[in-house]
Amino acid sequence: MNISNIPLAQQLVGSCKAAGVKHIVISPGSRNAPLTLSFTEAPFFKCFSIVDERSAGFFAMGMAQQLQEPVVLVCTSGSAVLNYYPAIAEAFYSRIPLIVISADRPAYKVDIGDGQVIRQKGVYANHIGYSVSLRQDVSHATETYAQCNPDVDLSAWPRKQEQLAIENQDDIFQALQIAWQEKLPVHLNAPFEEPLYGLTSSDIDIPRWEIPAVEIIASDQIQAMSKKWQESSKKLVLIGSLAPGQINQSILEVLANDPSVLVLTETTANVQHPNFVCSIDSLLVPIEKSEERQRLSEAFRPDIVLSLGGMLVSKKIKALLRDFPPKSHWQVGHAKMDTFFALDTFIKGEASAFLESVTADYKKIPSDYRSFWLGRFKAHRSKRETYLKALEFSDFKVHAQIYDSIPEGFQLQLSNSSTIRYAQLFDQKAGVSIFCNRGTSGIEGSTSTAVGAAYVTKGPSVLVTGDLSFFYDSNAFWNAYVRPDFRVILINNGGGGIFRILPGDKTKNAFETYFETTHGHNAQSICQQFGFEYLEASNQQELGPALKKLYEPHKNPVLLEVSTPRIKNDKILLEYFDFLS
Amino acid sequence: MNISNIPLAQQLVGSCKAAGVKHIVISPGSRNAPLTLSFTEAPFFKCFSIVDERSAGFFAMGMAQQLQEPVVLVCTSGSAVLNYYPAIAEAFYSRIPLIVISADRPAYKVDIGDGQVIRQKGVYANHIGYSVSLRQDVSHATETYAQCNPDVDLSAWPRKQEQLAIENQDDIFQALQIAWQEKLPVHLNAPFEEPLYGLTSSDIDIPRWEIPAVEIIASDQIQAMSKKWQESSKKLVLIGSLAPGQINQSILEVLANDPSVLVLTETTANVQHPNFVCSIDSLLVPIEKSEERQRLSEAFRPDIVLSLGGMLVSKKIKALLRDFPPKSHWQVGHAKMDTFFALDTFIKGEASAFLESVTADYKKIPSDYRSFWLGRFKAHRSKRETYLKALEFSDFKVHAQIYDSIPEGFQLQLSNSSTIRYAQLFDQKAGVSIFCNRGTSGIEGSTSTAVGAAYVTKGPSVLVTGDLSFFYDSNAFWNAYVRPDFRVILINNGGGGIFRILPGDKTKNAFETYFETTHGHNAQSICQQFGFEYLEASNQQELGPALKKLYEPHKNPVLLEVSTPRIKNDKILLEYFDFLS
Repeated sequence: MNISNIPLAQQLVGSCKAAGVKHIVISPGSRNAPLTLSFTEAPFFKCFSIVDERSAGFFAMGMAQQLQEPVVLVCTSGSAVLNYYPAIAEAFYSRIPLIVISADRPAYKVDIGDGQVIRQKGVYANHIGYSVSLRQDVSHATETYAQCNPDVDLSAWPRKQEQLAIENQDDIFQALQIAWQEKLPVHLNAPFEEPLYGLTSSDIDIPRWEIPAVEIIASDQIQAMSKKWQESSKKLVLIGSLAPGQINQSILEVLANDPSVLVLTETTANVQHPNFVCSIDSLLVPIEKSEERQRLSEAFRPDIVLSLGGMLVSKKIKALLRDFPPKSHWQVGHAKMDTFFALDTFIKGEASAFLESVTADYKKIPSDYRSFWLGRFKAHRSKRETYLKALEFSDFKVHAQIYDSIPEGFQLQLSNSSTIRYAQLFDQKAGVSIFCNRGTSGIEGSTSTAVGAAYVTKGPSVLVTGDLSFFYDSNAFWNAYVRPDFRVILINNGGGGIFRILPGDKTKNAFETYFETTHGHNAQSICQQFGFEYLEASNQQELGPALKKLYEPHKNPVLLEVSTPRIKNDKILLEYFDFLS
Repeated sequence: MNISNIPLAQQLVGSCKAAGVKHIVISPGSRNAPLTLSFTEAPFFKCFSIVDERSAGFFAMGMAQQLQEPVVLVCTSGSAVLNYYPAIAEAFYSRIPLIVISADRPAYKVDIGDGQVIRQKGVYANHIGYSVSLRQDVSHATETYAQCNPDVDLSAWPRKQEQLAIENQDDIFQALQIAWQEKLPVHLNAPFEEPLYGLTSSDIDIPRWEIPAVEIIASDQIQAMSKKWQESSKKLVLIGSLAPGQINQSILEVLANDPSVLVLTETTANVQHPNFVCSIDSLLVPIEKSEERQRLSEAFRPDIVLSLGGMLVSKKIKALLRDFPPKSHWQVGHAKMDTFFALDTFIKGEASAFLESVTADYKKIPSDYRSFWLGRFKAHRSKRETYLKALEFSDFKVHAQIYDSIPEGFQLQLSNSSTIRYAQLFDQKAGVSIFCNRGTSGIEGSTSTAVGAAYVTKGPSVLVTGDLSFFYDSNAFWNAYVRPDFRVILINNGGGGIFRILPGDKTKNAFETYFETTHGHNAQSICQQFGFEYLEASNQQELGPALKKLYEPHKNPVLLEVSTPRIKNDKILLEYFDFLS
């Protein structure tokens, strides 16, 4: 084995191994050569090469999202590190652990006019779990360093280097711990002195890494909460983004069969039960539009809102609970979010453990809270079927048909922004796991995320995306890791469909250019460039057969472009909301 | 006229107008609707719509680079703002004024689980001239705000809003001043409360904006420097990146005809004279490789180095002057850069003004400093011609032919990283202005920069780029602003050619995947997607006619893809250096 002869590179690579971090996404560069040389040489690691760091960031995030473990990003010095930032922010809010190891010039070469140098130290300060610029290791290049720093006392050198290595080790382990435990992105900035390409066969020793135990919720707090839970006859459980299998089935059954508990699940909650309301907006639109809005909202207003998991997509539940706040809002999760301005208890922890504790000695109490609202939801749902039957070819109709078509066992990735909002309006099939970048809800990395997630998943995957989001992330396929069973359904309505749905005057000159941003592009060239098979459908007759063909086995990944009319979609959606009410 | 009814939006738009900032690049979004509605309605502004904020940032930078005036970037809340960061950092180090106006949610909606929200305040802290999160203006939405902030005393409201508006105005003008005077990027973060789409016909009044006078260099300092300049017989003038016309021709003649002055110009210096050394590395390689390195380096070592303009590309001049530092290093520019660890005087100001002052009463002194080195340079140059004649088809040969082919009056944009390094080795034609993103030397935005720069230039433009840089910025043409006289020469050697030139073992397994990052792509699909005419050349016979055809008038923009062999380029370059010496 021939690894880098720079001790700091050995220390970083060895620490990742000690902490069981296996997946390394590398973007090409020279300053990061010591890391690249060492990571790619050790059979322990699975390395990936992606040129565009923005795409690499989301690709890594997609892998980490599926693996539920940290993934490393390695880049060179300079602006490379900035291109990760959109993925870092998404990971920060979605609680997905990324470990950025950025190579840097030594500190004394920053801001003196050398190339590919920026101020990397603390560059992600606003959105990072832990960030450190490691102490410079120049033991392999003492002479170069001394030449540039004539004031340095070389006699104290070896001891000083040893001390720096110990301090660096503490920082590296601290970062790894936060990535594993807090599921946050972390940043290790590593300054490397030239020469960068030196090799050695002797590795350094890394201390043993142990993940410290997580704190447990205080039992007296749980007792008090259990009591309150027992006494309340209107309990709303709101489940945001969650990875599949995060809540035990037995606990779900307890919730589902409690007449005082109404469970609302987001599309990305990956939790399903016939007694849950799986399309929040379908339940809330009729309240919002009702002449009895005040009375219905009061009837809906829960004693306790218990929110679990990550981000909520539904704006309507936020608006309703802000206007009609619950008596109590309990939140269980990683980061405190006072979404309804009514949070009184935040429990840092996992949803399942909390639910088990709080419902341990629980006895059902009589209530018609669930039955009333679940009944309304089911009535709305059958109305949707009626509406759909008569509906012309449009985004709404296409989305309905897509979610109905996805075979069991597929992973479904959804892009922002109109895609996830449409997906919310429909039931999602059991046996299909669902993901969407809702941390920052950006449109820049949905495709790259899907490609990364698909790569480490057992079964096949499908990405449903709008056109702006798809073309934005057009570098997502510029790598060697797109699986042949990867599928894309691109709903191309020729612009940003979300802007037609939002308020604002659609007849204004500026609308098409600066809001909707219309374009005449299709995905054919991109498919050609990256070896995708290309299918298309532009009316109701073509869609069914095309979807069927899409899911069949192919030698290459396949993209289905569904062209929908741009103009009518807002009216159809509003009519649907009227129809529901 | 129907502009946004939100006073803060009116204030921002009005202030840009007052400060004479005309070009506005808008990326679609809803939170920024108040800005978009107002900017696009006022005939004073020229607005542009670009979806991918990374590309939009570089497009705006390209315009600002040519216009020599600030350009505004407008984006929505959330991760959009992060996608500007690569362009912001480049602008920061290249001293190109960008004004980012990012829409934001009100502060009380940050980190509570709302969509498209990040911590935008101070997000560019490491690389920004001025940054402020403006005080929230809720005068149009008092009720919404009061509802979410029940503790607020509404009776004090109107006065408070007035006060906030005054403070905001100070900040906005401060930012505009730094953009104009310091040529730095600035960030105005603007929180907007819903409703976002309200319109009015009545605008607010903006105070008159005046740009404060710039300080003048102290005359006693100039006197002392003139004296020293007069006394030194070995003066090296190093000219980095400069916009064309920044140094008066009369001053250039004074420098060019002084036997004690050796002028070295970077490829991007946009300054030319037969007595200047326009290819720094061609002069320095033979010193570096000489058996008499020590003696020659001592002979080269100047009494004074005067560095002007922006970044230096040549690593060799940095290395030489670090090893053999001058007695004095004077730098004239915007930001102090102690590039050779020998800086004793930094003058904040423009090169031309300084040169005029310092050489005002100057009398030539006898010296053979210039004649010796200029003579050597000319000898090396004729060797280059000999070497080129016998050379096989390769990156080196192709670059030589390209720079020779560019018609006068063209603007030349160069990408990073091997492209600009090759360009350094050849003479550039008079009458061709040359630009390259050397602030951070990133590969992510060269094409977008070129498209933006071309849009506001009088004549035609040509971008010379490598394949990694070109495919990285593949969204650069996804807008309506690519001029029909825009040309691209893509030198596609199937990977990152720079890595072959750098040290490191090219036979190692990891090399091709993780350093060179080989790929089999060509630009045909991208040309098809964006309506470019596509030309190709893959040998010496095809190149000449293809270049000729490229510069002919066409209805659409044209791309010429030159396919060169991937493997031999490093050897050819090293052989050339040997041949020179």
